[in-house]
Amino acid sequence: MSDPKSFHMSPEEFRRQGHAVVDWIADYHSRIESFPVLSRVKPGEIRAQLPPNAPEHGEAFDAILADIDRVVLPGITHWQSPHFYAYFPANASGPAILGDLVSAGLGVQGMLWSTSPACTEVETHVLDWLVPMLGLPENFLSTSSGGGVIQDTASSATLCALLAARERSTKFASNHEGCDGRLVAYCSTQTHSSIEKAMKIAGMGSDNLRHIEVDKNFAMRPEALASQIERDIHAGLTPSFVCTTVGTTSSNAIDPVREIASICRDHNLWLHVDSAMSGTAALCPEFRFINDGVEFADSYTFNPHKWMFTNFDCNVFYVAERKHLIETLSILPEYLRNQATESGAVIDYRDWHIQLGRRFRSLKLWFVIRHYGIEGLQHHIREHVRLAQEFSGWVRSDERFEIAAPVLLNLICFRLRSGDRINQDQANQLLMERLNASGDLFLTHTKLDGKFTLRLCVGQTNTQARHVERAWKRILEETEKLESS
Amino acid sequence: MSDPKSFHMSPEEFRRQGHAVVDWIADYHSRIESFPVLSRVKPGEIRAQLPPNAPEHGEAFDAILADIDRVVLPGITHWQSPHFYAYFPANASGPAILGDLVSAGLGVQGMLWSTSPACTEVETHVLDWLVPMLGLPENFLSTSSGGGVIQDTASSATLCALLAARERSTKFASNHEGCDGRLVAYCSTQTHSSIEKAMKIAGMGSDNLRHIEVDKNFAMRPEALASQIERDIHAGLTPSFVCTTVGTTSSNAIDPVREIASICRDHNLWLHVDSAMSGTAALCPEFRFINDGVEFADSYTFNPHKWMFTNFDCNVFYVAERKHLIETLSILPEYLRNQATESGAVIDYRDWHIQLGRRFRSLKLWFVIRHYGIEGLQHHIREHVRLAQEFSGWVRSDERFEIAAPVLLNLICFRLRSGDRINQDQANQLLMERLNASGDLFLTHTKLDGKFTLRLCVGQTNTQARHVERAWKRILEETEKLESS
Repeated sequence: MSDPKSFHMSPEEFRRQGHAVVDWIADYHSRIESFPVLSRVKPGEIRAQLPPNAPEHGEAFDAILADIDRVVLPGITHWQSPHFYAYFPANASGPAILGDLVSAGLGVQGMLWSTSPACTEVETHVLDWLVPMLGLPENFLSTSSGGGVIQDTASSATLCALLAARERSTKFASNHEGCDGRLVAYCSTQTHSSIEKAMKIAGMGSDNLRHIEVDKNFAMRPEALASQIERDIHAGLTPSFVCTTVGTTSSNAIDPVREIASICRDHNLWLHVDSAMSGTAALCPEFRFINDGVEFADSYTFNPHKWMFTNFDCNVFYVAERKHLIETLSILPEYLRNQATESGAVIDYRDWHIQLGRRFRSLKLWFVIRHYGIEGLQHHIREHVRLAQEFSGWVRSDERFEIAAPVLLNLICFRLRSGDRINQDQANQLLMERLNASGDLFLTHTKLDGKFTLRLCVGQTNTQARHVERAWKRILEETEKLESS
Repeated sequence: MSDPKSFHMSPEEFRRQGHAVVDWIADYHSRIESFPVLSRVKPGEIRAQLPPNAPEHGEAFDAILADIDRVVLPGITHWQSPHFYAYFPANASGPAILGDLVSAGLGVQGMLWSTSPACTEVETHVLDWLVPMLGLPENFLSTSSGGGVIQDTASSATLCALLAARERSTKFASNHEGCDGRLVAYCSTQTHSSIEKAMKIAGMGSDNLRHIEVDKNFAMRPEALASQIERDIHAGLTPSFVCTTVGTTSSNAIDPVREIASICRDHNLWLHVDSAMSGTAALCPEFRFINDGVEFADSYTFNPHKWMFTNFDCNVFYVAERKHLIETLSILPEYLRNQATESGAVIDYRDWHIQLGRRFRSLKLWFVIRHYGIEGLQHHIREHVRLAQEFSGWVRSDERFEIAAPVLLNLICFRLRSGDRINQDQANQLLMERLNASGDLFLTHTKLDGKFTLRLCVGQTNTQARHVERAWKRILEETEKLESS
């Protein structure tokens, strides 16, 4: 019960109910494999169980928590299940959840250094830790000309990179901020949709985004990029920005960043590197080949909330020259003026992203790094990659299947070979739908070379050998059922 | 200790440490009044206590949690202290923190309906609840042509509103998305800086933002807006968007939305209403005067994370015609295709904001509304307004002070009258600095009519009469010290 005089939850009641919620989560994670991974509800089924109006009087917390089981769980697709192989992972861990809980309990705003100095300084410090941990270039350190910031998502980080590039380009052309319709940006045909969305948001127009063709491994072809840039310059346009990807969403392809960087330098283009999931692999020295050329990047982003056991949202965004970013996004009204800002001795992160307000998100990342240590993080990344490689071996050794793209890290793209194109696509789609409908695992698809292709991404915190073995067993079972029908 | 074989925190360890974190938060809230509200650390003091490199081996959770007290707390400005009167509140409550904890435990992505149907449906449902709770127009309901979405901040919501307006305007002009440098937006001289930032981000250019003059109450003058629109049309420009504010950041001024709406209709301008803090007041019928004219708005935003006891981030954004928003922000790559989306029977919220990924943020709002009930929420909003009105009475009754703006709800703008302008500004700044340095309370300033003005905003969850009385007592004490020196 809440305090009847104040309606507030007293500290003692918070303690009791907080323990209940913690226990609920521990139990949920203990029984998570008992749920069908992909939710089976139909549109509207969840809402139909909720009362049409908000309650006039407060309800007991026990009743509210009980509705998580009764109403919410049937409508959950279990991203934290070890049988989750869909999209990219959004993994989490105990220390991350508890770091986030401390952040909620403190309830501070980190928009300015002065509004809670620890919120800014822990963030800066942890992002400096990550630079050597991942083998990233030293100009990403806050002690250099650059620095890092936590954003919500890679979509936002890529937008900020594009905006900084746009301002740098228009400054040379003496325009006001914004776009005269002549700035051009480049990505590959495989780049994440967030860059097209960013082009629309930034007012540069999605028709000024060039989708450069890829090679047989789905990586951007540098010579095609160079040719397109020449054509655009010849047409009187202004090339401004290149978005490269280290680990595309479709197939985990890695663009040749070093060669593309050379082209960018020739034409003074902003080079952005999106390594949203795969960036985490660089924790292990043997996977640091993915960082080749990143030392030439103007900006770089990866998501600890994908593969580094840190619950969403926690994107990390580095720039080589922070002044470009800050000049683009800084606004200083009177009601935010303060001595610390005016001294120039502090970072005010509200100038590093779209939003003004911001949470103490570095706590969960700090907790994760300290709980696991570099050693523990490396152990799990290695194990995920090893399991994915083992799975790809099974696929290769079964002649009914084909691998559809190089398996560089933890994502396997594969498909049934059966029949002509239409039959093949239908068979693969049916296979995916039956697997997902079974509730035993969840995987999603893409199209590669125009063909419907299954994607299996190993990255959930608790996915172990037995889960991947079971996934393959279930794929074989459903394939046999398909063949016999 | 973590499981030595896996480095992971086991469910049993999570249970134990989770209880410890909950207890820590309960204790923190019990002793929060013992801390100086505004942090006293100097730039770099927090970082200086952190090791230069990440740990190679994992650390015990007890040691990590102990660093919250040792390292973090001295660098915290206590936004959840009942003595916090600065900026706008970012209040929180037990049920909100626990709802957020459930969200972290579930760890789902709500980018598409299909990626966790409950995440979408609970959000839609709770935002539909809020429409009658706040007396907002029915076209904001999901069952009408409009609908609501939870965003991170009002900055992002205002940006989305501006983008939708930009697309609607350029569609009439048959341009590609984006801006030809001729679209104009309007706000008042008192509008939040986020609109200027949004103009830069959207590529419309901050020089195409017109800051319309205000009346003596700091509200936008409709006749000045109408004149400016006429001048812009005459100059060959295209008026596109008006940002009105119900409760400005500086002084809580309320723009005359109804009169401005009439001007917008005459010229087919998008009307946005930013009611970031004050929107919550509409829970109480007696404060619903603030919604006058909102029924003509194309978009509306307010922040439950400011004054509705829901911890940051939780912004609510409504549109009257969702198709404009969705057409602006929709991108559909192959790897996100799914049956539910293609059936058209569901909402995919990734088309309603900048980001792709999204958390289950409606849980905390759902928990708050159910815990307090409408009755409990109304009680606290009424009480905060009553305390602010009482404080303004004390200011008015002391001839050394003047009230600097109408006290419509929970914000009091006031200042010492003393001396000429320079002396007056210095005296008020000194008064603020001494109060904040004492640690007994935290308040911030603005400039009104060019004069340095103190702002005291009553909105922290636990602020009661005794806290406001103490604030006034401390202000009097420091004023007397100033006078005697």
